[in-house]
Amino acid sequence: MRPVQSSARPPLAARAAVRELEGSRIRELADAAQARDDLIPLWFGEAQEPTPRFIREAAARALEQGHTTYAPNLGLPALRQALSDYVSALHGRPIGPERIAVTASGVNALMLSAQCLLAPGGRVVMTTPHWPNLREIPHIVGARTQAVALELRDGRWQLDLERFIDALTPDVRVALVNSPANPSGWVLDREGQRAILEHCRRHGIWLIADEVYERIYFEGTSAPSFLDIAEPGDRLLVVNSFSKAWSMTGWRLGWIVAPAALLPDLAKLIEYNVSCATTFVQHAGIAAVRDGEPFVQEVAGRYARARDLVCQRLNALPNVTMPRPQGGFYAFFRVDSERDSMALAKRLLEQTGVGLAPGIAFGPSGEGSLRLCFAASLPRLEDALDRLAGVL
Amino acid sequence: MRPVQSSARPPLAARAAVRELEGSRIRELADAAQARDDLIPLWFGEAQEPTPRFIREAAARALEQGHTTYAPNLGLPALRQALSDYVSALHGRPIGPERIAVTASGVNALMLSAQCLLAPGGRVVMTTPHWPNLREIPHIVGARTQAVALELRDGRWQLDLERFIDALTPDVRVALVNSPANPSGWVLDREGQRAILEHCRRHGIWLIADEVYERIYFEGTSAPSFLDIAEPGDRLLVVNSFSKAWSMTGWRLGWIVAPAALLPDLAKLIEYNVSCATTFVQHAGIAAVRDGEPFVQEVAGRYARARDLVCQRLNALPNVTMPRPQGGFYAFFRVDSERDSMALAKRLLEQTGVGLAPGIAFGPSGEGSLRLCFAASLPRLEDALDRLAGVL
Repeated sequence: MRPVQSSARPPLAARAAVRELEGSRIRELADAAQARDDLIPLWFGEAQEPTPRFIREAAARALEQGHTTYAPNLGLPALRQALSDYVSALHGRPIGPERIAVTASGVNALMLSAQCLLAPGGRVVMTTPHWPNLREIPHIVGARTQAVALELRDGRWQLDLERFIDALTPDVRVALVNSPANPSGWVLDREGQRAILEHCRRHGIWLIADEVYERIYFEGTSAPSFLDIAEPGDRLLVVNSFSKAWSMTGWRLGWIVAPAALLPDLAKLIEYNVSCATTFVQHAGIAAVRDGEPFVQEVAGRYARARDLVCQRLNALPNVTMPRPQGGFYAFFRVDSERDSMALAKRLLEQTGVGLAPGIAFGPSGEGSLRLCFAASLPRLEDALDRLAGVL
Repeated sequence: MRPVQSSARPPLAARAAVRELEGSRIRELADAAQARDDLIPLWFGEAQEPTPRFIREAAARALEQGHTTYAPNLGLPALRQALSDYVSALHGRPIGPERIAVTASGVNALMLSAQCLLAPGGRVVMTTPHWPNLREIPHIVGARTQAVALELRDGRWQLDLERFIDALTPDVRVALVNSPANPSGWVLDREGQRAILEHCRRHGIWLIADEVYERIYFEGTSAPSFLDIAEPGDRLLVVNSFSKAWSMTGWRLGWIVAPAALLPDLAKLIEYNVSCATTFVQHAGIAAVRDGEPFVQEVAGRYARARDLVCQRLNALPNVTMPRPQGGFYAFFRVDSERDSMALAKRLLEQTGVGLAPGIAFGPSGEGSLRLCFAASLPRLEDALDRLAGVL
C-alpha cells in the first residue's frame, strides 16, 4: 500500500543527486560475511595491526594533559610546523606551514578541496580504475567527472599521457591525479608529472593530487610527488593522510599542501565542515611525523615483501593476470574465466572465506578484476593465497 | 606589480561562493590578543576545563586495546545502541539505532544534513541572531538562506511564531531551528514546536533541529525537543553533539536522529566526507552517554549559577540590556552607548583583557550586542565582570 501523500510534498528521501551516489560495493559484500569465523578480510584498505604504540601513547599523553578543547581551524601550529619540516625534507624544497592545512582525514581533505574549487557543473578529469570516493566527492558538489582509462601493457598498468592531456581541455576546472593509485598500484612517473603540470599551468587548470600512498612505494623512499617539481604559486592541492604510512586509518587525520593564498578560504571551509581535526589526535600526529620514519620505512619494506609474494603466487595461476603494482598496498588482478567481479567475489568468499573487493567498485574498467589488500602478515597472506589457489 | 596572467586563466583563488563566505569575526579578534597574559577568553563556545576524566580514560583504554582501525560509516553499533537508549529515555519514546548516524561533530552533522537535503538554489529559513555556521553551511552547498529576527520583549528574546510560519512558504526546502539558541539563549516552547512541525508536515518541508544545547537548560532536565513530539516518519533531522553537555569540544563527535529511510544515504555522505568519526573517540562516546548523566546534570547546575551571576551583574550596569537566557551557556547583551560591536569588543579587550564575541558575528540583528560564554568558573567570571563594570 502506498502512503497517502499530497502531490506537492517531496519524497521522504535525500535529494536526487545523493540518492544516485554509489554505495560501497565492498561494504555490501562485507556485511554479508560478518558471521563467518574463518574469514580473512582483505577487502578494506588498511593494515590489520593497530597503530604503533608510540603514536597511541602520544595520544594518551595528550588526553592526560587535557588537550580536549578546540584546535585552530587549520590545525595546531606545532603540527603544521612538523608537517612543514617533514614535507620540505621529503621533497627537497621549502614548504612552509603557511601552505599546510590539517584536515580530519584524507577523504575530508578531498571534500574540502572539491568544495573550495568546484562550482556546480564544474568539470573534473581523472584516471580509472579509481577509488570510488574520487568520483563521488565531485558529484556531491554538483561537478561532472570524466575518466581516462589506464591500460594494461607489458604486465603493468600504464597511462596514455597524450589521451589524458587531450582530455584536459581549457574548460576543465580540475585534473585529479591519484598516484600511487588505488586500486591499480599505478604510479605517474616524473615525465608524466611534468607534462601534466605544464599543461595545467598553461590553461589555468587546478591540479588535485591524492598522494596518500606516496610512502608505500617499491622503487624508492617516496613516490614521485608533484611537490618535488611544483612552485608555491602553482594551482596545486596535494592531499595526504596519516592513515596508510603510519597505520592510522581510524584516527581521521590528514593534510593539504596548497598555495598560501588559498589557506584563508580553506580555514573557512574547515570551520563549516568539522571545525578542526580532533585535538589530541593532532598531538599524536606530531609524534608520528617527528618520530615515525623508522616505522614508515619498516612497513614499506614489509609491504614490498607482501607484494612480491602476492604477485608471484597469483601470476602462477593459469587464468589470472596480476599487473605488478609500483606503489600502494593493493593487488588488482584480473580473472579471465569470470567477467562479473561481484559474483566472483561472492563465490570466492563463500568457497574460501577470503574477502576481496570486486573490481566493479572501481568503475567499469575495473570489471573482471578483484582487489586484494596485502597490508597483512605473510602467513596470513599465504593462507589466503592457498585458499584462493584451490578455487581459481 | 601584477603577475602576468593569460586572460583565460581563472584566478589563483577559491570559487566565488567560498570567497564570499564570512570568516570568523571572533577568531579575527582572538588572533589579535594572543600575546596578552591577563586575558580572560570568553569568546569561544566551550568549557574552560578539560573533558571529565572518566571519558578521557575510556579513550585511553580504547587506544591501549588497539581500536585504531576504521569504524562503520554510521558509527560503532555499540555507540548507536547507547545513543538510542539515551535519546529514547530522554524523550520518552523509542528511537532505535536504525535512526541514528554518528558524525564527526555537530557541525559535521549539519553539513551532512545540508548535503543530504539541499540542492543548489534550495531555500532555508532560520531565526536570527544565529551561529554563523547555520547560515554559511547552506551557502556552501548553494542554498539560499532567509532569517526571521527574534525580538527582545519583556527582557527576553522571543520569536513571533506567525512571522516564522509565514516565512515557511511551500517552496521552502528546510526550516532550520536552533533551540536552545546560540547566541541568544532563546528556547522554542512546546506550542511553537507543535505549530512549526504541523506546518512542515502539511507542506512537506524538512525540519533540521540543532539541539546541541538541549542539556544546558535552566527550566528542566532537558529543553523541549522535536523528538518529544515527532513521529519516526516525520521529515525531521535532529542534530546533536558531545561537545557542550559532556565538555568534549576538541573530540569532534556528534550524531543525527533521522527517519530510518534516510540512513543509507547519510552513510554514503559520511563515507565521502570523513568516512567515520575517530574510532577510539566513539568508544569514549559510549562511556559518556552511559555513565555521564551525573556530570551532565552537575555541569548544567554550574552553568545555571553562572547565568544568574552574569545576568545580575550585567543588568546592574546602567546602559546594558541583558535578556535572560533560558538555555545554552551564553550571555548575549546589548550595550546602548555603542552600536559597532566589533569596535566595542576590541576596546573592551584592550582596556580590560576580557575576550568577548562581537554581536555582528551573529548576523545584522546581533549588531550592538556582545556574547560572553559563561562556561567558566564563578571566580573567573567575577573577575571578568569586575573588569567590564569598570569600563561599561
